[in-house]
Amino acid sequence: MAGSSYGKLFQITTWGESHGKALGVVIDGCPAGLALSENDIQLFLDRRKPGQTKISTPRKEDDKAEILSGVFEGRTTGTPISLIVHNTAQRSSDYGEIANYYRPGHADYTFDQKYGFRDYRGGGRSSGRETIGRVAAGAVASKLLQLFGIRLTAYTRSIGPVIIEDSRFDAQAILDTPTCMPDREASEKAEAYLAECMKNYDSAGGVIECKIEGCPAGIGEPVFDKLDADLSKAIMSIGAVKAVEIGNGILAARQKGSENNDAFRMQDGKVIKSTNHAGGILGGISDGSAILLRAHVKPTPSIFSSQKTVNRQGEDIEIAIKGRHDPVIVPRAVVVVESMAAITLLDALLVNSCAKVENLQKIYRE
Amino acid sequence: MAGSSYGKLFQITTWGESHGKALGVVIDGCPAGLALSENDIQLFLDRRKPGQTKISTPRKEDDKAEILSGVFEGRTTGTPISLIVHNTAQRSSDYGEIANYYRPGHADYTFDQKYGFRDYRGGGRSSGRETIGRVAAGAVASKLLQLFGIRLTAYTRSIGPVIIEDSRFDAQAILDTPTCMPDREASEKAEAYLAECMKNYDSAGGVIECKIEGCPAGIGEPVFDKLDADLSKAIMSIGAVKAVEIGNGILAARQKGSENNDAFRMQDGKVIKSTNHAGGILGGISDGSAILLRAHVKPTPSIFSSQKTVNRQGEDIEIAIKGRHDPVIVPRAVVVVESMAAITLLDALLVNSCAKVENLQKIYRE
Amino acid sequence: MAGSSYGKLFQITTWGESHGKALGVVIDGCPAGLALSENDIQLFLDRRKPGQTKISTPRKEDDKAEILSGVFEGRTTGTPISLIVHNTAQRSSDYGEIANYYRPGHADYTFDQKYGFRDYRGGGRSSGRETIGRVAAGAVASKLLQLFGIRLTAYTRSIGPVIIEDSRFDAQAILDTPTCMPDREASEKAEAYLAECMKNYDSAGGVIECKIEGCPAGIGEPVFDKLDADLSKAIMSIGAVKAVEIGNGILAARQKGSENNDAFRMQDGKVIKSTNHAGGILGGISDGSAILLRAHVKPTPSIFSSQKTVNRQGEDIEIAIKGRHDPVIVPRAVVVVESMAAITLLDALLVNSCAKVENLQKIYRE
Amino acid sequence: MAGSSYGKLFQITTWGESHGKALGVVIDGCPAGLALSENDIQLFLDRRKPGQTKISTPRKEDDKAEILSGVFEGRTTGTPISLIVHNTAQRSSDYGEIANYYRPGHADYTFDQKYGFRDYRGGGRSSGRETIGRVAAGAVASKLLQLFGIRLTAYTRSIGPVIIEDSRFDAQAILDTPTCMPDREASEKAEAYLAECMKNYDSAGGVIECKIEGCPAGIGEPVFDKLDADLSKAIMSIGAVKAVEIGNGILAARQKGSENNDAFRMQDGKVIKSTNHAGGILGGISDGSAILLRAHVKPTPSIFSSQKTVNRQGEDIEIAIKGRHDPVIVPRAVVVVESMAAITLLDALLVNSCAKVENLQKIYRE
Repeated sequence: MAGSSYGKLFQITTWGESHGKALGVVIDGCPAGLALSENDIQLFLDRRKPGQTKISTPRKEDDKAEILSGVFEGRTTGTPISLIVHNTAQRSSDYGEIANYYRPGHADYTFDQKYGFRDYRGGGRSSGRETIGRVAAGAVASKLLQLFGIRLTAYTRSIGPVIIEDSRFDAQAILDTPTCMPDREASEKAEAYLAECMKNYDSAGGVIECKIEGCPAGIGEPVFDKLDADLSKAIMSIGAVKAVEIGNGILAARQKGSENNDAFRMQDGKVIKSTNHAGGILGGISDGSAILLRAHVKPTPSIFSSQKTVNRQGEDIEIAIKGRHDPVIVPRAVVVVESMAAITLLDALLVNSCAKVENLQKIYRE
Repeated sequence: MAGSSYGKLFQITTWGESHGKALGVVIDGCPAGLALSENDIQLFLDRRKPGQTKISTPRKEDDKAEILSGVFEGRTTGTPISLIVHNTAQRSSDYGEIANYYRPGHADYTFDQKYGFRDYRGGGRSSGRETIGRVAAGAVASKLLQLFGIRLTAYTRSIGPVIIEDSRFDAQAILDTPTCMPDREASEKAEAYLAECMKNYDSAGGVIECKIEGCPAGIGEPVFDKLDADLSKAIMSIGAVKAVEIGNGILAARQKGSENNDAFRMQDGKVIKSTNHAGGILGGISDGSAILLRAHVKPTPSIFSSQKTVNRQGEDIEIAIKGRHDPVIVPRAVVVVESMAAITLLDALLVNSCAKVENLQKIYRE
Repeated sequence: MAGSSYGKLFQITTWGESHGKALGVVIDGCPAGLALSENDIQLFLDRRKPGQTKISTPRKEDDKAEILSGVFEGRTTGTPISLIVHNTAQRSSDYGEIANYYRPGHADYTFDQKYGFRDYRGGGRSSGRETIGRVAAGAVASKLLQLFGIRLTAYTRSIGPVIIEDSRFDAQAILDTPTCMPDREASEKAEAYLAECMKNYDSAGGVIECKIEGCPAGIGEPVFDKLDADLSKAIMSIGAVKAVEIGNGILAARQKGSENNDAFRMQDGKVIKSTNHAGGILGGISDGSAILLRAHVKPTPSIFSSQKTVNRQGEDIEIAIKGRHDPVIVPRAVVVVESMAAITLLDALLVNSCAKVENLQKIYRE
Repeated sequence: MAGSSYGKLFQITTWGESHGKALGVVIDGCPAGLALSENDIQLFLDRRKPGQTKISTPRKEDDKAEILSGVFEGRTTGTPISLIVHNTAQRSSDYGEIANYYRPGHADYTFDQKYGFRDYRGGGRSSGRETIGRVAAGAVASKLLQLFGIRLTAYTRSIGPVIIEDSRFDAQAILDTPTCMPDREASEKAEAYLAECMKNYDSAGGVIECKIEGCPAGIGEPVFDKLDADLSKAIMSIGAVKAVEIGNGILAARQKGSENNDAFRMQDGKVIKSTNHAGGILGGISDGSAILLRAHVKPTPSIFSSQKTVNRQGEDIEIAIKGRHDPVIVPRAVVVVESMAAITLLDALLVNSCAKVENLQKIYRE
């Protein structure tokens, strides 16, 4: 209820600050019997690690996941899975200066307004490091979804003005390129664009896309807990996301009904849609087609050029942010988007298991 | 948990189908002592009533709100407020045909997949009439927010290709025009566009904008229950919405940090932002500026031109939808967007009252 | 969250005051496909109706249940079931006097302290009539549980000093006797005792017992949401209940381990317990034996003898309560206990359906 | 939702198994600005440590609390407080035997039925060590309640047949005696009784009482989330508790209305009750008197005498439990009862802060 928990039946609670002792997540409600190892988690965490390239900072973040509970003899027990990542690279001294003023585009001011004070070291709770817990939980959710044939793929769609070309889609490039773009050519252009931004002490935004394949029809609740509504919350809860689209998204608002509607057709004895403008969701419930969503991410607010702001004493000042900051948030947020989508979908799948008496009769029989 | 409830402390539960006996909402958690009458509710309900103009259907929907509980001697008692609207214009016979096939762009197919069958009369639970409960609750939330100086204004930003001109912004026009546009000139163009759509048996989409003024800084929780995340869920849970933007929204993804950041400045002893690209929310918490959001609404899926689909027997068929359908959803959804935003903001305001010990000490003293 | 909702997946929200227009309940999360009629509800409601006998008041409460939504062609649709009972016997004039003082043993004073004022007519929200919604929902839950072979039986165990004799247990007597005792001899003694109480302008308390048979092992969550913990909350949330016991209950605290432990044994290839001191729950999870609980109910606080109290002006006064009041709450609360137990168990059954991957694989297959 | 979280606004999530790497709790929703140190937590944890006396086992459990997040410069920040206790005394080898059979009175069988398998080491998740997280959170809740003048005192009321004498009530004795009885004479008798139990390879149960003083009137919600209902759930969720009483409890069921009702009176300009049979709660809401509750605790199920049970292969066997086990659970559960009561009351206090518009106006002003 206080906002660090997410999910109904598969419920995660993240905790930890950027420069505290550790960060982590407790997953309550993971069904028993899933094979799970620390390596499963680590593979996801490594995807949010800054790379070795020009577009990411030279910080060394070797986040190692440790499972503290909820797994016994290699399988989940049905009880809470506690995952921890110790903060090893804390250098609080770097951040003493920001204790006293409000960085534009950051949550410094709003935290002070809400709580009266804040843990200012490295952004404290509002740091991007909070997503460690989300990604660790996302690894678990994704592994469980795979048992039911559901696969998620998130990638960078654009950075600044550089957009991927669908005809060049190359899934391997998502993992290979520093931009997480599935298009090596676009990725190179994006890298050049980011180098230019850095030279100008500036930063860039971009778009992340996530595709979910293999989801059966019927997942999601019809009114407030629509699958697209829950996905929107999940994605918008990632810091820096400023817009969310489902399927045709903003384009739908400019289309006519005859263009936007997807015709149903029979194919091999199954109902399919001949197009997928809806992005796999109708009336808040999955329709069996691929689920498609896009997150629009603002540029990194920490820029090195001079900025106007105020300090805690209420004086107008001018600042120049120091430290190490990526010129773009997008590539590191790709796995966060994928994780939040996986957690949301899994939770909806669990809730749906009680949607009809027929389902329950498969589990409980007189 | 089953998805027809929304909110944590100000919690609403809607119920009812398009062609059932009645629709309604139960509001649990409305603070005691708010002056409230049926007229307060009716004013909001009337805003979602189809007008007398060419762009809306000739259906007569005289939705009358009745308060069944939770108000005593003109004030809320703190106990559940049950609001009911009886369905008077049920003509189930009109809808017998759709029982057997799946309308493109509607939830017919997904309901059948989820529940095994559906109340097909007028769309049943997935009908736009479900929003009656939301709007009734929105009226209550808005009245309470006004006590704290918070005012919401939602309006149509665009219909098809017709966009309002900010320089012509006229708040009265929202209530006067059939399009709910705050720009009479744009409204006329939009009406002409819609007339053209109808002539072609087609429909249009559009964009709704909502502005919240007077919200204090500090509202919203920093991680999953970010104010923008909760608003996104609230708005995306309205049928036909396919994208949500906060502040600069999708534009932010194409901007540079130096363009997107808002500088803090002192003004009359108060911290303000010299621009508001963030849309009034930083790190998920309100910053004291106006909160701005946009909902992108797809075109009405019920169109009169011929469409391809399948029936429940699994046969490819061609259909022509009959009945009475607006060529655009947007104008009637304006008050729904405003209502969902009000409910969400009020709930966050209540949750925030426990954010710091200092707040509690104002209520409880040793 | 504001306390008029109960349950996680099978969630009920009750609303309404004793002398308002109506009372009701919204059930969200009832699985689709359950055959349900108004008569199913009415049978339960009739069990909480005051009888024609000396121990109940001459009030005429002909509570008729009406289904407003969520049922189509005789089956639940999976969407919210709204049930309403109109208040027909409102005579507010009877209660004007209690507006100004605080009845001992009632919630008048605490409501005023919490909310600043209260709907005083007939006890308002704290009236026993609030349980109408619980009983209506209990009828639905019970019907669903029966599909899985689970049967609940609640009855009066004692009234004042009169206790039933287990050797005379007669299930039909529960429905036949005005005391709801499964022992006709004890019932007659209890009636005589109550007649004596009434003669002395006094009232009596008693104990309700509930037995749940046919519940499979494995239901309930191991830590906070233990099945016995949730049942305790459910039962203690019924006005006038002051103690709850599971299995041996208070006796267990005086027993030795060798007396209280139940041995496991094999019988017909199944694990059984040779005794059931645990009351069917071990570690918060059902063990396959009958679940047994007892609710201790205080005497009716509305008594006709003179009582000392204070009024809203803060003056010591003496009052004599008028009106019509049963000398004992127990018989009418029997069906409330059974209903709350049914709702709680069903909810736990639904939650448990996601406890292991194996269960989900029965519903979702790749 | 999956049962390891508790509370609405002050929400705790416990995790960890008896013989896993660590156990802990995440507290989400602790208001910002509370002075808090590891020592505050340790004082509570030490109260559940086995003593040096004959009635407790020679196990060395040196549970050290560590704060991982949510506290900055000695004060809570409003973000999640993660508390961890490392398991240092894991000796899994001791428990290999119980992997294969079901101990009477334990959750071995029900865990296997629910999840398909279990972490059997030392009881795994159903071990009493799970309460470490509850007690750590209870320390935080208690410290916050003290700011508002609310004090909780839990103690042992009885062990087996030995009951404390109210006239000898000595608060210091609660901390001094190995039984946690506030009566040194009774404590000695109880110790003698327990020595006898141990000699006979048997165990004893008992009763814990908790008194809450200084709670203002108005706390608790009137319907399902009654303060007594929530307290009952909290207390019954502690392993081994089999009954809960509020105020007069089971006695109330045998009293007459004229005996059980508490008269209101004016005293020094304040409303008081001349007696407190209600235990400080009327209609689910605190009435300003002391809140009184009792938990009835079953005898330790692990006894050394021979017991009949079955193994996982479905064979009848006879077992003799080895290892180190206290002959009574009660003394170590005293601080658990106090902690769960504190958490529940604090949560209700937070929820109540939104009960009336007047409260909100103290925090938010136009």
